Amino acid sequence: MNKTKEKLAELGSSIIAGVKKGKQPRIEIPVRALSNVVYNEKTKTLELGNKTAERLFFNVGHTKKFVQTIEVAKVAKQLLDLEKHASLRDVFYMAKRTLPGTNINLVDEQTESDKAIEDLELITDFSREQLNINANKNGSVAGHVMIEDKGDTIDWSKLGSGGWSIPSNVEEIKFRKVDAKYIIYMEKAAVWERLHEDKFWDKYSCIIMSSQGQTTRGIRRLLQRLNQEHTLPVYVLADFDPYGFYIYSVLKFGSINLAHISERQALPEAKFLGITADDIEKYGLKKHFITLKDVDISRLKQIADYDWFKKNKLWQRQFKMMKDFGSKAEIQALSARGITFISDTYLPEKIKNKDWIE
Amino acid sequence: MNKTKEKLAELGSSIIAGVKKGKQPRIEIPVRALSNVVYNEKTKTLELGNKTAERLFFNVGHTKKFVQTIEVAKVAKQLLDLEKHASLRDVFYMAKRTLPGTNINLVDEQTESDKAIEDLELITDFSREQLNINANKNGSVAGHVMIEDKGDTIDWSKLGSGGWSIPSNVEEIKFRKVDAKYIIYMEKAAVWERLHEDKFWDKYSCIIMSSQGQTTRGIRRLLQRLNQEHTLPVYVLADFDPYGFYIYSVLKFGSINLAHISERQALPEAKFLGITADDIEKYGLKKHFITLKDVDISRLKQIADYDWFKKNKLWQRQFKMMKDFGSKAEIQALSARGITFISDTYLPEKIKNKDWIE
Repeated sequence: MNKTKEKLAELGSSIIAGVKKGKQPRIEIPVRALSNVVYNEKTKTLELGNKTAERLFFNVGHTKKFVQTIEVAKVAKQLLDLEKHASLRDVFYMAKRTLPGTNINLVDEQTESDKAIEDLELITDFSREQLNINANKNGSVAGHVMIEDKGDTIDWSKLGSGGWSIPSNVEEIKFRKVDAKYIIYMEKAAVWERLHEDKFWDKYSCIIMSSQGQTTRGIRRLLQRLNQEHTLPVYVLADFDPYGFYIYSVLKFGSINLAHISERQALPEAKFLGITADDIEKYGLKKHFITLKDVDISRLKQIADYDWFKKNKLWQRQFKMMKDFGSKAEIQALSARGITFISDTYLPEKIKNKDWIE
Repeated sequence: MNKTKEKLAELGSSIIAGVKKGKQPRIEIPVRALSNVVYNEKTKTLELGNKTAERLFFNVGHTKKFVQTIEVAKVAKQLLDLEKHASLRDVFYMAKRTLPGTNINLVDEQTESDKAIEDLELITDFSREQLNINANKNGSVAGHVMIEDKGDTIDWSKLGSGGWSIPSNVEEIKFRKVDAKYIIYMEKAAVWERLHEDKFWDKYSCIIMSSQGQTTRGIRRLLQRLNQEHTLPVYVLADFDPYGFYIYSVLKFGSINLAHISERQALPEAKFLGITADDIEKYGLKKHFITLKDVDISRLKQIADYDWFKKNKLWQRQFKMMKDFGSKAEIQALSARGITFISDTYLPEKIKNKDWIE
């Protein structure tokens, strides 16, 4: 925590020192644009390239962004001093004010403060969670895991039908006991409830984690910490759907938007556990096909063109089969085979046979 | 649980008995349409009227729906026998199959099985949660409450920064100890994290509960059970926004769609804690106004016309003020006054002064 405050203080001091020497205030920031995003074959994650840009105070095109960046740095410093966390929306309101003697607002839209916060991540090399700025909260987790958080000891195996609610910020959680062989992450809370009711995590000694809708940064970071600190493989259970593939892609390689913090978010060893084109044949899911829409087809094309999928024959085969089928299929289609088919047969078979795609 | 199974068995037996007597299979179902939705001034909830319709097997317009209703009854019976729960999507796949010797599917779209399930709720007078069919899972809760669920004892005050993740089905939860004076429900998970970090529930002896996005049936039912079984008032903390008012309206009175289970969902005593038009003056939030869009204005008009708001002068005043402002404002705008302003000042003042709208 102290390192974060130090870094922010340093940023302030360096600007003041410059001003005292009669130099104009400036900040150097790596360029965050597709043109500066590189796929690192070695680490298998998206990374920012070397291009940087200077933000100058005495440049009418830069002034506003310069001031916004300094302002969110001030807000982050306040939060760290108070030992409080704020959401992106809170930070927007905390930064929003009219400059005295003018009718100019420091920020008018949240996108402006959001961008300034992303810049601050780049400048300080700390994630916004470390700057006490939180993303959205979402998701549940269960398994034989004991954690310590805010002075409480929490047993993820003793939380009834609900499970532990994943916070937006998991940086300060301490893992006390992790008794699991792997993690299954699924995008659908309903599938999580299925596996949870069947005590899948207990029978197969694993952790089950889900979001509802988008995978939040809190979830990604929790998966990553368990993967790195406890060498647990992460299996992604998603639909046979361009959107399911996209969820996997973002989890594994990072996103273009957040390439600057890939190292704090990506899971280069994540495996796609299904649904695959082969599952559709094997488990007779063709009768539950859903026709691809135009938006699906264009997303599929886009994903197939990603650098990190381009040379991957296994994935290109999946993409081609989906295109040929002209159809997608959902995890829940397995329920047609019986409500516990996924827990009793599908997942145990897939995992036993290492039937995943990387 | 046994009562639910009995009721489903009864439904089956009565149809078979009719067939054996040479009568055509038929089910009587209350009409679910706005024309049969009544606002009950006494219970202050939306209710279904007395109109019923017959669904006949030998009527080409009815046959499919008749068979679908019986099919989901079969699925519910299976789930109850297995002591397993399924999501709406699961039930769709469990009911989906092609009738032998034809190319007709029993259901083609989830909306069909969803409607059949709602009909089954009406026919059996059990909620779909009692039929072991779950809605979506969402939301978190914290407070000095001990519950028992699936053999686990869970203390809502000892779950770190995450809280307890609310399951989709809360019918079988047992409250062991409830040490709280009221419940604050908020639509935004970020606001929940704010109050949770400030230990608001501990300082003011209350329960804090949130969703992210829509209020799920699990959340509504949990609020209702705490309200009814432990006489806890429920305060709704939402934006000064037609959508915030709508969230309150649905929580308090029930929704037109689900009027048939209002008694299991509505919270006729819920109070709107803010943000109100008066808060905007009092706490200087005008500078954080957001201009109403066309969709906001038409939603506001629609809400103002609801039977249950029409004669309510306090609410009509709020609606008028919003229209005159031409603007809305968010809870998080309070953060401009300091990150803990909501916990330290706003909420304590509002609650102390009983400054809410009913």
